[in-house]
Amino acid sequence: MSGVVTESVLARQIIQAIRSVVGSDPVVLHEPRFAGNEWAYLKECLDSTYVSSVGRFVDRFEADLASYTGARYAVAVVNGTAALQVALRLAGVQPGTEVLIPALTFVATAAAAVYLGATPHLVDCEAGTLGVDAYALRDHLRRIAEIRDGQCVNRVTGRVIKALVPVHTFGHPADIEGALAVARDFRLVLVEDAAESLGSTVYGRHTGTFGVMGILSFNGNKTVTTGGGGAILTNDATLAKRAKHLTTTARVPHRWAFTHDDIGYNYRMPNINAALGCAQLEQLPQFVDAKRQLFERYLTAFAGVPHVCVFREPVGCRSNYWLQALLLDEAAANERDGVLAATNDVALGTRPTWTLLHHMVPYQDCPKMELPVAESLEKRLINLPSSPHLVMAASR
Amino acid sequence: MSGVVTESVLARQIIQAIRSVVGSDPVVLHEPRFAGNEWAYLKECLDSTYVSSVGRFVDRFEADLASYTGARYAVAVVNGTAALQVALRLAGVQPGTEVLIPALTFVATAAAAVYLGATPHLVDCEAGTLGVDAYALRDHLRRIAEIRDGQCVNRVTGRVIKALVPVHTFGHPADIEGALAVARDFRLVLVEDAAESLGSTVYGRHTGTFGVMGILSFNGNKTVTTGGGGAILTNDATLAKRAKHLTTTARVPHRWAFTHDDIGYNYRMPNINAALGCAQLEQLPQFVDAKRQLFERYLTAFAGVPHVCVFREPVGCRSNYWLQALLLDEAAANERDGVLAATNDVALGTRPTWTLLHHMVPYQDCPKMELPVAESLEKRLINLPSSPHLVMAASR
Repeated sequence: MSGVVTESVLARQIIQAIRSVVGSDPVVLHEPRFAGNEWAYLKECLDSTYVSSVGRFVDRFEADLASYTGARYAVAVVNGTAALQVALRLAGVQPGTEVLIPALTFVATAAAAVYLGATPHLVDCEAGTLGVDAYALRDHLRRIAEIRDGQCVNRVTGRVIKALVPVHTFGHPADIEGALAVARDFRLVLVEDAAESLGSTVYGRHTGTFGVMGILSFNGNKTVTTGGGGAILTNDATLAKRAKHLTTTARVPHRWAFTHDDIGYNYRMPNINAALGCAQLEQLPQFVDAKRQLFERYLTAFAGVPHVCVFREPVGCRSNYWLQALLLDEAAANERDGVLAATNDVALGTRPTWTLLHHMVPYQDCPKMELPVAESLEKRLINLPSSPHLVMAASR
Repeated sequence: MSGVVTESVLARQIIQAIRSVVGSDPVVLHEPRFAGNEWAYLKECLDSTYVSSVGRFVDRFEADLASYTGARYAVAVVNGTAALQVALRLAGVQPGTEVLIPALTFVATAAAAVYLGATPHLVDCEAGTLGVDAYALRDHLRRIAEIRDGQCVNRVTGRVIKALVPVHTFGHPADIEGALAVARDFRLVLVEDAAESLGSTVYGRHTGTFGVMGILSFNGNKTVTTGGGGAILTNDATLAKRAKHLTTTARVPHRWAFTHDDIGYNYRMPNINAALGCAQLEQLPQFVDAKRQLFERYLTAFAGVPHVCVFREPVGCRSNYWLQALLLDEAAANERDGVLAATNDVALGTRPTWTLLHHMVPYQDCPKMELPVAESLEKRLINLPSSPHLVMAASR
C-alpha cells in the first residue's frame, strides 16, 4: 500500500502541523502589523494637509527605500502593477513586442506588458527557486530566436522579444545571475519583478537591484504595506528621472503652466500612503526576522508529515519568506484541493499558487516554452499562513 | 487712450481684490480641509489592519457616493484617470477608435483614451459653461461624420468615433442636455468627466449621472480628497459589476483560486484612502457652501476692477465652484502672464487654465474641430485661490 495516501489523514496531519505553529485561533493567509509609527505619521500627514501628490513622506519613503535596498533611486507609485508597466515602457516595450514572463506568477506581471500592447511570452521556472529557469530559457531562445540588428527576434512570431522579467516568487530570489546572462546574450532588458521580495537578498545584494530596473509592491498582503503602493528601483539617473516624469503625468516643470510633453500616468503614490510606508519600513527588519522564524517553525512542525516539504530559500540567498509554501509530493498532488478545503474549513488561511498564465483565457494563446516544472508546481503547492505577527505575538 | 491697459495697474488691482477676500497671508490655489472624522476613521482603519484592498470603508464610501450623487452605483478606484480609462473601455473604446474630448481639459481626460489605443478628437467649448459646445460639435459632426451600421464614422480618418466625454470644467456643469442630444443622434456613448464637479448639479440632478457612466476624482486638489482616488458612477447594474470586476484584476470569485478571466487592472481604492474619503464626504455640503460663498466674495471684490469678470455658474446649475476663474477681456489678454507672475510673486496661488491639448506635443496631431472659444479662454483665464477654508476659517 506504500505510495497510497489517504486524503483525510494527510489533511488532518497538515492542519495539526499548522496549528502547532499558529495556535488554535482563525488565521488568514497574510495580514499586516501596525506596531510602529503608523499612527504618528498619518496624523502628521493630516495635520500638514499634504495627503496627496506632494508631501515630505513621499520623498522620505523613496529615500528610505533606496537606502534599504541599496538602489541608487526609488520612485514611489500607486502599486506594483503600475511600477512594472512604467519600467517596461522605459525598457522599450511597445506594441508588437514580446516580454518573457514566468508562467507561474501573479497575473499583474503579464498584464503590465499587455497594457503596453505587448505580448507575454511564457517561461518555465525551476523547482529549486520557483523562479525563471535560466538554462531551459536559454535552450528555448536558441531554438526559436535570433539576433537581428542587435535585437532578439522570435522567428516563429516575427516579433522582437524586448525584455525578460524574472519574478522572485513568494519572496524567494530567482536565479538572477543566470537570468542576467541570458539577458546579456540575447540582448534583452532585464526588469526584476521584486513585488514579493522586499527584504530578500542574493549574496547580500537586494533583489530588484540586479536588473536595469526592478519593481516593488506594498499591497496590503505584502511584507510591508502602504495600503496600495509600489516602487521602481534603478541605479540609472536618467531612467529614474524618466520614471518620475512619466508617473507624474509628464508635466513640464513650470511655476504655473500645465503643459505635458509625453503620454504620462497619474501613478504617483499619495503622501498619506507614503506616510504609512515610512512607518512600516522602519519595522521591516523585524518583519523579515519573524517570517524567517516562522519558516523554521513550519519546518519543524512538518518534519514528521509524509508526502510534504516546506519550501526553503535557495542557496546563497536570504529570503523574506513572504508566503510560506508547502509542496506536496507528486504522489500526493491529487490531495491539493482536499487539503485547501479542509484547512479553509477550519479557518486556516491557505491557498494554491496562482493559476498558471496560459491556463487563463486572456493568456491562453501567448507564445510559450515547455512548462513542465510550472505545471507540476501548480498542482502541488499550497501557501501557508505567513503573517509576521504569528511569531511576533507569540514571542511577546 | 481707452482700451489700453497698463500692466502693473491691472495686476495691482487684481492682487488687491484677491487680498480683500483671502487676507494677507500666503495662500495656495487649493488645499484640503480636515476638520471632521478623518482621524477617527483612519485610526479605525489601522486598528482593523484592513488598510488595503478589502475593508468596510471602501464599501461605505461607494454607498455614500451613490447616495450623495443619486447614482445607483459607485465604484471606487485609485484615481480619476483610472476611472475614466475603465469607463471608456466599458463604453467600447478600443484601439483604432476616436473619442470626442474638449481641447480645454486636464490632460488625463485625453490620456485615458490613449491608454486604450484610441485617438482623442478635440472639441471646442462654449464661453458660458466652459464645457463642450454642443451646437458647434453637432455642426462639426454633420460635416465630417456619418452613421454606418449604427456607428459614427469619421469620414476623414475612417475611424469609428465611439464616445463623447463632456467635462464639467472647474466644477461648472457643461451643457449636458445638448451633449446628450448630440450623443443620441450620432450614436456616441456619453461618459461624463465629473472629476472636478462633485457637488455640482443641473436642475437638481448631480453631474456625472446623466451619461451612461460618469467619473469623479478625489485627488488632493479636489473639493473632497482621499489622497488619491476616483470613482465610476452608473445606473446600469451590468456596467457597475463589470467596472468592479475590471478594477479588481478581473479575478473570478473563488474561495482560494486566483484565476482571472479578462485583462483587468489593479485599480481598487485602498481602504485607508476610502476611510479619508468617508470623513471628507460628510463635510462636502459645507465645503460646497463655502466655495459658493467664496465666489460671492470674489464677485464683490472684483466688481470695481476693469477688464475682468469672475466666472459664474451657468443658468439652472448649482456649481461647486471647485476652482474660481477670473476672465480677462480680450483687450487685456496680453496681461495674463504678468498677472500670474505678480500674484505668485506675492504668494497668491493663481494659475492659467491647462495648456490646450493640441498645443502639447503628444496631442498636436489629434483630429479636431475649429477651436476659437477654447483658444480665446486659454489666453484669458486665471484661476484664483479656491480653498473652502478661506471662507470657513474667516467665519469661525
